[in-house]
Amino acid sequence: MDVTSFRFELIHQSKKSRARVGKIYTPHGVIDTPNFVAVGTNGTVKALDNHLLHEIGLQLMFCNTYHLLLQPGTEIVKKAGGLHQFIQRKLPIITDSGGFQVFSLAYGSVADELKSRGLKKQGGSVLKITEEGVLFRSYRDGAKILLTPESSIQAQKDLGADIIIPFDELPPYHIGQEDLKKSLARTHRWEKRSLETHLSNPKGQAMYAVVHGGVDLDLRKESCAFLSELPFDGFAIGGSMGKTKDEMHHMLSHTLPHLPNEKPNHLLGIGDLASIDRLIPLGIDTFDSSYPTRSARHGILLSAKGNINITKAEYAEQFGPMDENCPCPTCTRFSAAYLHHLFKSHELTSMSLASAHNLYFMVTWMERYRTLILEDLI
Amino acid sequence: MDVTSFRFELIHQSKKSRARVGKIYTPHGVIDTPNFVAVGTNGTVKALDNHLLHEIGLQLMFCNTYHLLLQPGTEIVKKAGGLHQFIQRKLPIITDSGGFQVFSLAYGSVADELKSRGLKKQGGSVLKITEEGVLFRSYRDGAKILLTPESSIQAQKDLGADIIIPFDELPPYHIGQEDLKKSLARTHRWEKRSLETHLSNPKGQAMYAVVHGGVDLDLRKESCAFLSELPFDGFAIGGSMGKTKDEMHHMLSHTLPHLPNEKPNHLLGIGDLASIDRLIPLGIDTFDSSYPTRSARHGILLSAKGNINITKAEYAEQFGPMDENCPCPTCTRFSAAYLHHLFKSHELTSMSLASAHNLYFMVTWMERYRTLILEDLI
Repeated sequence: MDVTSFRFELIHQSKKSRARVGKIYTPHGVIDTPNFVAVGTNGTVKALDNHLLHEIGLQLMFCNTYHLLLQPGTEIVKKAGGLHQFIQRKLPIITDSGGFQVFSLAYGSVADELKSRGLKKQGGSVLKITEEGVLFRSYRDGAKILLTPESSIQAQKDLGADIIIPFDELPPYHIGQEDLKKSLARTHRWEKRSLETHLSNPKGQAMYAVVHGGVDLDLRKESCAFLSELPFDGFAIGGSMGKTKDEMHHMLSHTLPHLPNEKPNHLLGIGDLASIDRLIPLGIDTFDSSYPTRSARHGILLSAKGNINITKAEYAEQFGPMDENCPCPTCTRFSAAYLHHLFKSHELTSMSLASAHNLYFMVTWMERYRTLILEDLI
Repeated sequence: MDVTSFRFELIHQSKKSRARVGKIYTPHGVIDTPNFVAVGTNGTVKALDNHLLHEIGLQLMFCNTYHLLLQPGTEIVKKAGGLHQFIQRKLPIITDSGGFQVFSLAYGSVADELKSRGLKKQGGSVLKITEEGVLFRSYRDGAKILLTPESSIQAQKDLGADIIIPFDELPPYHIGQEDLKKSLARTHRWEKRSLETHLSNPKGQAMYAVVHGGVDLDLRKESCAFLSELPFDGFAIGGSMGKTKDEMHHMLSHTLPHLPNEKPNHLLGIGDLASIDRLIPLGIDTFDSSYPTRSARHGILLSAKGNINITKAEYAEQFGPMDENCPCPTCTRFSAAYLHHLFKSHELTSMSLASAHNLYFMVTWMERYRTLILEDLI
């Protein structure tokens, strides 16, 4: 099997829904889909080291170009021999373009905007947004940095992830129809420039387009059509997904049918269990989210029976494992009572042990979906 | 070899100094001396889990009864099957009496007092100190707790460490001669009561006396003489050790000769490399200190060539290991540049990786001392 070039293999299309099982081949190994992608913003999953992450078995890791651009700088990662070598990860990596974070500076928290919680229209240290790109000031050393389709792709070339993402504009949630159209057109122009930069020196990397259009179904359809015409290797779905999970489900159910079946897709930044459960039947292949690790650091442990708040008094004397059926390194080694105690004592170890459990849970949880799809039960 | 009962074996007495190599046999295994003892206050070394600690190879772990009494409560640890079972440690554990922490409440930070930095004579939530013991208020739930020689030993019976420590009074540094004498007499009475409580139900545990007397050489000698008459299994050295390392060295060089050679000794709370180097020739067997792990969390890495501040810019592009000769899991897996980056990014992973290195360093560093002593080079 040639794993040195990117390829998507559709193993099984469910008879019951659009859900499918597949395999993404990359230079650093295979990703079974549907799957969950661990978020390791700065080149590490929070509270775990990359050797532990290997043992846990997550096949794809998401790193953020914006963060790595500012610290340590993509030039340094390049000098180190690329991101895999620098962070000592042997399995596949995906990087984003930095667009999401840099537009957060412009519009306040994009996450807030996406969910329509905030109304900040200015702020942060974005100095200028033009057709060329975005000029912003580094929060680390005050240096001015120009992020463009070309410079974002150059940064992602330096990092050398298996899958990279074109530079896009992320409009705020509260945007008028005309402005949204203009933003989509610019995003498409930026993605095309990104793709051209990428293809001038592919270096074995694959590039996923980013589908935009907010919650406007026509614009989403238009975005799918435009991007499908270009030789992208897969499709990420980004931008505003609505205020509620219903709105997101509605948008996605009308967007995914417009993407080519033979290419993989990725849903950006969504990975809570309820959403995964509702969205897998729509045919989503991969999900990334910091939800499992962020929850872990607050004592929320994932289980097939629902979330467990290990800090609750009821676990103080549960001397068996948190989940008797869980084969993870945390549950097989330590009791619920000890985990509870470590959280109560504010020990950093609690965060590592809980994060390992939650990510291991995601591995087995996604395996379960693949099995169900292969049996046409989803 | 019977490792179910406590025993000290003197392997070699240096011809050059009072330094010696020995073996302490405990129900949970052997401790080679001289050695460094990892501090795991709440039942874990900070930022590491106990399985990693096993791999690193530290033979003895120090847990604090005061902390475990308040969280999770020693009754719960007893229900869990004892501390070894609760925290999943298979190797030896030592617990203290809680005296040090509870007198910190009475006199402000005892650590400050010991070094004469502070002058707070009252404070904290100690309600009453009598011949019976110390009544204090829990900072966790406001409950009144009476810590006495008997209750401290009962708590340590519940925990079930291999080595336990009698309840002592910790006088402040700025104490008059008469008050210091009175305090020493009370400490001796409390230690005797502690020993009697212990011997009424030994449960395979060993008890080290705590030698007091501050920086008064006569009182230290008197303390050694008094405690040596009692059937303690070893001797810890506690109390004020002076304002400077010279004062500590002076006091210890006049104290250790008064302890029985055939029993092991432990220096409480001292474990920086410079002190270890000066004190091993005096015949200290074990040292405990949070220094290696606390330093690690601030980016200070220990090495044979001196401390390294990994957060300094000079490490940003050192793509080889921090220490090429270090066989620890951190140095063999990750570069100095990556460690530097993780600290700069404030990733929790940085603390785990640095802590693992520093403790591994202590293991090999103490091995080196044993080799040098066996060759009469120290």
